[in-house]
Amino acid sequence: MDLQQIHSALYLMKYKLIISYDGTHYSGWQVQPSSPSIQSTIQDALALILKEKRVLIGSGRTDAGVHAKGQVAHFTTEKELDISKVHYSLNGILRPDIRILEMEKVDDQFHARYSALSKIYRYHIHLDRTADPFKKLYSLHLPYSIDLPLLKEAARYFVGEHDFTSFANEGDRGSAGRDPIRTLMRLEVVEEEGGIYLEFEADGFLYKMVRNITGTLLAASKRKIALADLPKIFEAKNRKLSAAAAPPQGLFLMQVNYSC
Amino acid sequence: MDLQQIHSALYLMKYKLIISYDGTHYSGWQVQPSSPSIQSTIQDALALILKEKRVLIGSGRTDAGVHAKGQVAHFTTEKELDISKVHYSLNGILRPDIRILEMEKVDDQFHARYSALSKIYRYHIHLDRTADPFKKLYSLHLPYSIDLPLLKEAARYFVGEHDFTSFANEGDRGSAGRDPIRTLMRLEVVEEEGGIYLEFEADGFLYKMVRNITGTLLAASKRKIALADLPKIFEAKNRKLSAAAAPPQGLFLMQVNYSC
Repeated sequence: MDLQQIHSALYLMKYKLIISYDGTHYSGWQVQPSSPSIQSTIQDALALILKEKRVLIGSGRTDAGVHAKGQVAHFTTEKELDISKVHYSLNGILRPDIRILEMEKVDDQFHARYSALSKIYRYHIHLDRTADPFKKLYSLHLPYSIDLPLLKEAARYFVGEHDFTSFANEGDRGSAGRDPIRTLMRLEVVEEEGGIYLEFEADGFLYKMVRNITGTLLAASKRKIALADLPKIFEAKNRKLSAAAAPPQGLFLMQVNYSC
Repeated sequence: MDLQQIHSALYLMKYKLIISYDGTHYSGWQVQPSSPSIQSTIQDALALILKEKRVLIGSGRTDAGVHAKGQVAHFTTEKELDISKVHYSLNGILRPDIRILEMEKVDDQFHARYSALSKIYRYHIHLDRTADPFKKLYSLHLPYSIDLPLLKEAARYFVGEHDFTSFANEGDRGSAGRDPIRTLMRLEVVEEEGGIYLEFEADGFLYKMVRNITGTLLAASKRKIALADLPKIFEAKNRKLSAAAAPPQGLFLMQVNYSC
């Protein structure tokens, strides 16, 4: 080992990426053996540039069809990288439906998942008699109007610290044994052109939690679930009592917040 | 012929459709022998419902990759149709990237193309260092900033009644012999989130006119064409003097206006 090699072995460089992607044509964030995932696609592009395979750690997984405007991930390498060159090359190799928005070198303490203080998700609902062709892959279309005051009232039941077991799927992500208590800091119902979106900010989200809450809120707005039953659903800690998950294409991971 | 048949032969019913479509996966409006067009796709759906083949007359053709939020078309039939049923069935048969927004019965005098008083087109330009994955099919991406005051100044040269020969392609639409004089009532440069759009309203547009003007405006904003040369380009009546056409995916047919 020469000095350069010793230096490299001691000092792994860590790089943070902020990523936007259209999830339509991917199996989700996580590497899947069968179909291309966001993670594997970026890892492959990175391997071409770095001439070595590095694992990309995301802030969390997004499901097939779910989009991101601000996913965060990190990777380590022994190499000191020319950041703007690697950033530019990544976007050159990747298809236009995945874009690296920002790339920076970060402190070794940074971890895309464990350092996250909060995450912001949006769920878009397109409300019109006829579905807009330009919204079909990016929203849930409902061809009827919605009781907005009732939806907003229902949303208030979810804000705060709760055991969200009744709104979490088991899934394949080792959620068994994970702490089901999360703090939902905000759940806003915002009107936009052609519909509404729900904006969720929490210190963490359980598997399918945003889509399960969205499905339950829509059921409450249609009076299929009574507001008075919402606390009981929380208390039962039983996923079967809440409504079916809203479909993936309306969901966007907007932002991941870190202290540094 | 019984009375019903005589009645039908005398009275053709005329129906107007307002149509929105994502042009990404189509060869354009016009029926093409090789690949599916918007017109043929809707005609085929209509034939399934009416049990007869009717020709759909559009307000004008849109090229491959061009989108519409308010294309207008009409067809005639001897049948008295249950409008809301046919409207609903059409949207049921069509893929979600084509939507019939409105359907109504119109007077025999109405003609989707010849009755049009004006048309409105928008051309979206996405200005950001990194291209937004959600805008790639719906805008021209420019990774640099643009001289907006200069662009707006250049736009003023196009407003009014002009011979637009220098901004029209020959194409396959029998434009030879068509009157090249058109009145551009408006050409507005509007800032929007992530970029700008140009909004054109004219009494009619020649083949590729919006995309050719957009290309020339962008060249002027980059000082590749001097403002003082714009009147000369008009006078020369020579397509070769104006800039290359802007690509199709930024263009949207927004609205067609009729007196009735």
